[in-house]
Amino acid sequence: MGRPDLGTSGPLAIIAGAGELPRIAAEHVLRSGRPVFVVLVEGEATGDYADFPHAVVRIGAAGRLKEILLENGCREVFMTGAFRRPRFSEIDWDMGTVRALSSIMRLRFGGDDKVVNGVVHIFESEGFRIVGPREVLPGLIAEAGVLGRVKPSRRARADIASGLTAVRGMGPLDIGQAVVVLSRRIIAVEAAEGTDAMIRRCADLRASGRVAFPPPSGVLVKAAKPAQELRLDMPVVGVDTVRSAIDAGLEGIALEAGAVLMPQRREALELADEAGLFIVGVGRNDGPAAQ
Amino acid sequence: MGRPDLGTSGPLAIIAGAGELPRIAAEHVLRSGRPVFVVLVEGEATGDYADFPHAVVRIGAAGRLKEILLENGCREVFMTGAFRRPRFSEIDWDMGTVRALSSIMRLRFGGDDKVVNGVVHIFESEGFRIVGPREVLPGLIAEAGVLGRVKPSRRARADIASGLTAVRGMGPLDIGQAVVVLSRRIIAVEAAEGTDAMIRRCADLRASGRVAFPPPSGVLVKAAKPAQELRLDMPVVGVDTVRSAIDAGLEGIALEAGAVLMPQRREALELADEAGLFIVGVGRNDGPAAQ
Repeated sequence: MGRPDLGTSGPLAIIAGAGELPRIAAEHVLRSGRPVFVVLVEGEATGDYADFPHAVVRIGAAGRLKEILLENGCREVFMTGAFRRPRFSEIDWDMGTVRALSSIMRLRFGGDDKVVNGVVHIFESEGFRIVGPREVLPGLIAEAGVLGRVKPSRRARADIASGLTAVRGMGPLDIGQAVVVLSRRIIAVEAAEGTDAMIRRCADLRASGRVAFPPPSGVLVKAAKPAQELRLDMPVVGVDTVRSAIDAGLEGIALEAGAVLMPQRREALELADEAGLFIVGVGRNDGPAAQ
Repeated sequence: MGRPDLGTSGPLAIIAGAGELPRIAAEHVLRSGRPVFVVLVEGEATGDYADFPHAVVRIGAAGRLKEILLENGCREVFMTGAFRRPRFSEIDWDMGTVRALSSIMRLRFGGDDKVVNGVVHIFESEGFRIVGPREVLPGLIAEAGVLGRVKPSRRARADIASGLTAVRGMGPLDIGQAVVVLSRRIIAVEAAEGTDAMIRRCADLRASGRVAFPPPSGVLVKAAKPAQELRLDMPVVGVDTVRSAIDAGLEGIALEAGAVLMPQRREALELADEAGLFIVGVGRNDGPAAQ
C-alpha cells in the first residue's frame, strides 16, 4: 500500500490516552484556529470528548485507525496522554494490525524508547506525520531560566548540578530521567513508578528519618533521555507534580529547557509561587541556567 | 597523638548499628575462636548484647570510642549494622571529636561513598585497622554461580544481563546499586529508600497495571558501586529481602559475587528454594555466571 495523498493541511488528529493532556491539547489547538479530530483509544482515554469531533478505536487496531484518519482528512497526528503497553490479548487482529505485526513484535521487548520510536516508524511508513508538543504546544514547554517568582538558593543550584550529572549519566541506560537530590546526594531515582510516586517516596524518606535535612530542601530534576522521542514521549510536569513537590517539602524543581511539557503551566507556576517553590529551566549541556 | 601500639591480636571490636547484623557477626566470630568486644552506638544499636563484653558510646564521641578500644585491647574494628548520618546536634564534642572535626565536616556533604571512606580514614589515622566482611564473615558472602536449587530461566538470564549493564552504568554516579529488571526493562532503581522498599514498589507496579508481566517475572540485581568501601558498607541481602522478592512475584535475585553479604545465608536460600526463586552470584566483569 502506497502513501495516501492527504494534502497539506486538514484537522490535527489527537490520539488520546489517559489524563487531562489530550483535552488541554485539543482546546489549545482549537484556540489557535486549527480544527482537531480526537481519536479516543478505548480503555485508555479517560476524559469526555463529546464536544469535539471524535471516534473510538481499540488499542492495536492499526487498520481501523488508518481508515479513521483518512476519512477525516487528518495527515498530522499528535499522540498524547498516558498509554499502557498493549497486551497481546487486547490487540484487534485486523489487516492493518497484521501488517504492523513485525513492528509490534519488535516493540514488545526493550525499554520505552524502543517502543515509542517503533510507533513513530509505523505511522510514518503509512504516510502520516507525527507532530510533537514543540509544534503543537510550544508555549507550554519549559524554557531556560527562572520560570516562576522564586529563585533557587546557592545550595539548590548545587543540587541541580548534581541532579543533571546523574540524569545525564543514566541517559544511555534507558531508565527514567527524574531524580531528587538533597544536599548533593541522589535520594530517589524514577523508573516505572512515575515522577509523582517518586516524590511521595521522598516525603516518606524524610518522615522515617532516612534523610535528615529539614524542609524545604531537595530538588526534583527532570530531563529527557538523550534518545527520547520527544514528539511521542515528552516528559510532563503537571500541577500534581508541583503539589507533590510542595507536600514533600522540596525546595524546587529543575526541568530540562525545551524538553519538558507543562500542560497547566500557568496554574503550576502560581501554585509554586504561593508555596515558595522555585521552578527553573536548565540547559542539558550548559549546566544550570538558574541564576 | 601517635599510633597506639596494640600488638597483633586481641578481641575484634564490633561497632554495632541497628539490626541483626552485629549479633550475627559477634556469634560467628566467637564460634571461630576469636574474642569480640561489642561497642553499642547509642540510639543506633537495636539488639540486646548483654551476653557479650560490651560498652555504649554516643555517636560522634570519637575520643571516648578510642579510649574504649584501647582499654579493651582492640586493634581491629568491624563496623556493622545500619547507621543514620549523625546530626550535628547529636555529636558529643569531646577532644577526640574536635580532632576529627575537619574530617567530619568533609563527610557532611556528598554521597554515601564519601562518608564511609572518610570513616575509614579517621580510624586508620588513629592506628586502628578496619576489617570487613571478607575477613570476618567470608562464608556469608555470595559467590559466583547458582546459590540455591533453582536455576534462572533464559528470560531471567537476559534480565540479569540488562540489570548488570544498568548498575555498571550507574556506578560512577554514587546512587544505589540495586535495580529490578522485568523483560529487559529497568522498572525500579534504588536510591535512599533501601532495597526492600524498592522491591515492595514493584509489587505495587504490578498491582496497578504499570507493569504487565504475570508473576513470577522480574529479577532483582544488586551489586556494589565501583568505589564502594566494602569493609564498611558491603551491600546486604537478608531473609527479608528474599521474602519481599517472593511477595513481589519476582523470578529471582542476582548478586555481585564477592561483594554482597548474606548474613542469614542458609535461611535465605532455604526460603528461596521453597518458593522457587533463584539466587545467583554473578561476576561484575564476566557477565552472568548463571547457567
